Amino acid sequence: MINETYKHMIGEKSVIREIAETASARRREIGAGNVFDFSLGNPNVPVSPAFTKAMMDLYANTDSQTLHGYSPSTGNMAFRERIADSLNRRFGMQYEAKHIFPVSGATAALAHALRAVTMMGSEVITFAPFFPEYRPYAQACGASLTVLNSDPDTFQIDFEALESTINEGTAAVLINTPNNPSGAVYSEDTLRRLGELLERKQREFDHDIFLISDEPYREIVFDGASQPYPSKYYRNTLSCYSFSKSLSIPGERIGYVAIHPEATDADLLAVIFAQISRTIGHNCPSSSMQLAIAEIPDATSELGVYETNMNLLYDALVDLGFTVTRPGGTFYIFPRTLEPDAVSFCKKAMDYDLFMVPSNSFGMPGFMRLSYCMETAQVEAGIERLAKFVRENY
Amino acid sequence: MINETYKHMIGEKSVIREIAETASARRREIGAGNVFDFSLGNPNVPVSPAFTKAMMDLYANTDSQTLHGYSPSTGNMAFRERIADSLNRRFGMQYEAKHIFPVSGATAALAHALRAVTMMGSEVITFAPFFPEYRPYAQACGASLTVLNSDPDTFQIDFEALESTINEGTAAVLINTPNNPSGAVYSEDTLRRLGELLERKQREFDHDIFLISDEPYREIVFDGASQPYPSKYYRNTLSCYSFSKSLSIPGERIGYVAIHPEATDADLLAVIFAQISRTIGHNCPSSSMQLAIAEIPDATSELGVYETNMNLLYDALVDLGFTVTRPGGTFYIFPRTLEPDAVSFCKKAMDYDLFMVPSNSFGMPGFMRLSYCMETAQVEAGIERLAKFVRENY
Repeated sequence: MINETYKHMIGEKSVIREIAETASARRREIGAGNVFDFSLGNPNVPVSPAFTKAMMDLYANTDSQTLHGYSPSTGNMAFRERIADSLNRRFGMQYEAKHIFPVSGATAALAHALRAVTMMGSEVITFAPFFPEYRPYAQACGASLTVLNSDPDTFQIDFEALESTINEGTAAVLINTPNNPSGAVYSEDTLRRLGELLERKQREFDHDIFLISDEPYREIVFDGASQPYPSKYYRNTLSCYSFSKSLSIPGERIGYVAIHPEATDADLLAVIFAQISRTIGHNCPSSSMQLAIAEIPDATSELGVYETNMNLLYDALVDLGFTVTRPGGTFYIFPRTLEPDAVSFCKKAMDYDLFMVPSNSFGMPGFMRLSYCMETAQVEAGIERLAKFVRENY
Repeated sequence: MINETYKHMIGEKSVIREIAETASARRREIGAGNVFDFSLGNPNVPVSPAFTKAMMDLYANTDSQTLHGYSPSTGNMAFRERIADSLNRRFGMQYEAKHIFPVSGATAALAHALRAVTMMGSEVITFAPFFPEYRPYAQACGASLTVLNSDPDTFQIDFEALESTINEGTAAVLINTPNNPSGAVYSEDTLRRLGELLERKQREFDHDIFLISDEPYREIVFDGASQPYPSKYYRNTLSCYSFSKSLSIPGERIGYVAIHPEATDADLLAVIFAQISRTIGHNCPSSSMQLAIAEIPDATSELGVYETNMNLLYDALVDLGFTVTRPGGTFYIFPRTLEPDAVSFCKKAMDYDLFMVPSNSFGMPGFMRLSYCMETAQVEAGIERLAKFVRENY
């Protein structure tokens, strides 16, 4: 008896994946240089050399049981200490090792954070445009996902909508800044207002409302700016991080949940996460990965190419008549399509071997997402193709 | 609102972990050489040099995106192909790549296999003595775990009990051979009878009954024998494997589920597993680990010390008057305690700095588990201490 729930999920095919598969097929037909695939967010800059060096040093100098042995159920202590130090230094936090829980990537971070603070029937609120996997993540906990629109010009939170939506059953608010797909960076003002609103709603409903902050793009912020650290502005915050983008190691599956030191049950939450691990088959990320990252908690790859690519695309899109908000970070840009039906627009573009994701996937019609994880030359060639497509059709 | 379910799980402390913690505290007090810790199954032989070489070669010769990029949702194709080849060659199977699903260790393998073939209210049957984490694993799927006793002399399956227990609601039978904690290796006869019984029960109840075979100790078998491959004897088998013990890399979290090519939905099950991954925050094991193992699918560490240690312990236990079945594999031995109350026996032994796990944890009173993942000299010293304990108390 195969469980039909999971079988049915296969039917709900990911639009992003379908587009990427079509793009792959075209690459095989006409060569990679002739396909302009802005669909998949797959980091393309090389891994940080500091990471490779740290790993090589570990293999050369560490005994087998330390390098490859079981981690404690709450993770390797060196990793937890060094991450706590790094966050404290960078963001003025007061984390101790016990507040850091290593996980195998942001997906696992969210799986733990959501399970810890929801129960069957809880509501989780997030903001469109949003990463579509949030829905299965929430549903797998027995929670429902309520999606509110962001301000369509700034992609900051619409506080009136949030104010009137939070209710007795709201267990968590899930944010993602810098944001996939809009590239928006929540401002200090947004985060402060969010923190104040949640504090007030906690008092009103007399129970905790957790802020789950999904931050895999934290290190990719443009114009010399940086992402204000959400946990600074609200006590009950669980910060979910992955090194996938900052170190360009998405296949290695390593990240952490950082528990605000003054969150409810802050000293217990990592132990609760370890119990959640038992129920979902998680058992810490790779031990050698934890040890390598403990050596270089602040390292990043050379991420500058994303800003170069963003600027080229932003200027081109504006020139071509698109309405587009300049991204503050990530490797995405999110213009309005030149016709209201984003699916129709993106389908027509595919005839020009231009692959972009219609925004319906992200809960907000009328836009499209372009990912620019690619060589700058390919972005430039893609811009020429986009210009041709627009010229001939709009 | 912290989810109370997980909070309560903290209360159900693992006895094995408690004993190990007491042993650790004693090591700090009196030195590691004076503590005889037979409690934790933590592989102590060095990692296979073939694994280290494969990883070093990959870091030296593979581009960053291939080595560290996202895996496809059903895993790296080289890994899937090479594991299929290896199993076909070694066990005369007919796997194709699509039947192999890489996972982050045996825990993740079981999390996927159990979810795929159970639904809320399903029954999973297993055999005592059994690995105690099977219970939370099954419960997390909404299934119940029914535990049947094995034959207490051979630790093979009691087929009369199984025959009369399987019912309309039975979705899966979960076996573990070589077995933790007994060290028993299911014989070809046991596996053949099990396959025949399950085929018959499938017809009787007119639905699939899956065999979930947990095989992390497959490569640790003594006397030049080998573990008959359970999937050879029954079509609807999901083989759950981890490289933790064979390569001595338990912290790296890498293994696979192998789907029998003639299982129901065999060609779909890996895709179903990928859907399950979305719901539990699993997202393939480390990409570099998959690639390294694809290079050395048959490699193992030098595992002979486990057999040396087993023989020493077995002979000593017999000499000291214990009733004990000689293990066929693993790094465990499972004698009857010298008084019926195993907890009382193991508690008294702790006064001699001897740490062993009472069998109540494994669903079978009156025995204890000794793990011998340690230097042979430490086993010999432990035997002397055990002799002193027995002499002075029994």
